[in-house]
Amino acid sequence: MSPRPPKRGPKGGKGRGPRSDRSGGSRGAKSGGGGRPPGGDRPRGGDRGRSSAARGLGGDQVEGRQAVRELLIAGTRRVHEVFLLAGNDPSPILEDIVELAASRKVPVREVTQGRFDSVARTMSAQGVVATAQPLPEHELDTLASGRPPAFLLAADGVTDPQNLGALLRSAECAGVTGIVLPRHRAVHVTPAVTKTAAGAIEYVPMALVGGLPAAIGRLRDLGVWVLGLDADAPRTIHDVTLGNEPVALVLGAEGKGLSRLVRQRCDELVAIPMRGRLNSLNVSAAGAIACAEIGRHRTG
Amino acid sequence: MSPRPPKRGPKGGKGRGPRSDRSGGSRGAKSGGGGRPPGGDRPRGGDRGRSSAARGLGGDQVEGRQAVRELLIAGTRRVHEVFLLAGNDPSPILEDIVELAASRKVPVREVTQGRFDSVARTMSAQGVVATAQPLPEHELDTLASGRPPAFLLAADGVTDPQNLGALLRSAECAGVTGIVLPRHRAVHVTPAVTKTAAGAIEYVPMALVGGLPAAIGRLRDLGVWVLGLDADAPRTIHDVTLGNEPVALVLGAEGKGLSRLVRQRCDELVAIPMRGRLNSLNVSAAGAIACAEIGRHRTG
Repeated sequence: MSPRPPKRGPKGGKGRGPRSDRSGGSRGAKSGGGGRPPGGDRPRGGDRGRSSAARGLGGDQVEGRQAVRELLIAGTRRVHEVFLLAGNDPSPILEDIVELAASRKVPVREVTQGRFDSVARTMSAQGVVATAQPLPEHELDTLASGRPPAFLLAADGVTDPQNLGALLRSAECAGVTGIVLPRHRAVHVTPAVTKTAAGAIEYVPMALVGGLPAAIGRLRDLGVWVLGLDADAPRTIHDVTLGNEPVALVLGAEGKGLSRLVRQRCDELVAIPMRGRLNSLNVSAAGAIACAEIGRHRTG
Repeated sequence: MSPRPPKRGPKGGKGRGPRSDRSGGSRGAKSGGGGRPPGGDRPRGGDRGRSSAARGLGGDQVEGRQAVRELLIAGTRRVHEVFLLAGNDPSPILEDIVELAASRKVPVREVTQGRFDSVARTMSAQGVVATAQPLPEHELDTLASGRPPAFLLAADGVTDPQNLGALLRSAECAGVTGIVLPRHRAVHVTPAVTKTAAGAIEYVPMALVGGLPAAIGRLRDLGVWVLGLDADAPRTIHDVTLGNEPVALVLGAEGKGLSRLVRQRCDELVAIPMRGRLNSLNVSAAGAIACAEIGRHRTG
């Protein structure tokens, strides 16, 4: 079980007014060459506007049925209101959401398609959006300590919101106890991330760090074993004897992998064995496999 | 290594004229309630038009840089032409594509943004689209036989193209030798699937079957051990002693899991251990983990 995040206040502002700007959002091409997306690339199911809490963790707008239900179940941060698209077919999960909102005294507003579209910032909100306090930031040192022993996931520059959301969900399911994200040059918890994370953001505490190489150094000082996932590593994730000691798994950016400095700082680099003709997994699939493999050896 | 698909002719027509109809495409809500998507749900990075080969396997329009490069490298089906968005930043993968196309005598057309948008059927084509012969269909019996021993993945009604594409990519990387998809009530290889599969469709042969329960029966008759992934199963994927015998892994639809009949027909049901608070993984993450775990025990 991962520790429940403390009920600490958010650092950001309210940040819940929808924006009409559609040029923000998903910033990275998922794979291939250079750093900036090619001209023909538009966000794939990404965010249509930028959260005003973008340089904090974000998370102030939660979209999608599972994500909103978990937000209400977790009860770890204040929920301002829930928007439901009028005419949604009845379903158990929507009934859950309405009941949970009522029990938590969160206003539920049933809105027309036009109004809903002006509120939703992804194209996959499934007729449900909630606005909430931004996610609380946690300190790296806090995440590295405590019981059960830390099992951290650090993402080195993941820029696609769906990849980050998918990573967070798989990490939570594997028992990851904390997430480390760079404050700059990476996606934070945008509405598209909340949707794909399906509630994981409510349960796994997160820290933002100035630079990942320095953060890795700090983690090692604190006794955390830092494993970097690297396609070219001679050893595989299955070769590592990992018990219950504090561990951090570092994943690289889509297409580019770990930066040179990050690679140098890790205690060990491991690969996921590739048994076909392709030479790379999607970063969220690689993360799911690696987290499951590490989680398998833990008893915490 | 998975067997290379034979150079069998396509069954579908040409099917390469772009459509302007945007109502087709991604049909399923990724999670939550009923069978049809709620009113507010639009395709998330899904397909903007339907392939005319939709009831065959599809695959006649390939989008995205990795996917088009692998299509050209594999050389297992005829490529009609490659569309490149004019003004793409130079990158090694684009140079690869142009060189490979030249060596295979495939015309490359550099087109304006407007023309490119009329050709691309996803919003994540990364400035590269290719049209090709549809994917050849293979017989279930062929996939179940041969060397190395079969390692099949069957999807029971996966409706989200990005999930199917991600599954195919992770499966190929884990050494899966064949894919089994239902002919009806499931997504086939749409342009969005080609993009997310990142080339996997060129290497893993696929069969379409009338019904998955009957196909499972047939696989068992042929000596294939059929494992169903089921969140409620008492045993986990790690408890199963799988060597190198023929095996098929069956995954359920998003949100709904395996159908009752499919569940009954499997030799064994296994779960992926859940170590957090959420109670389910995304189907493509679950597939990635399960395929990697099965692949790990194989020597083929």
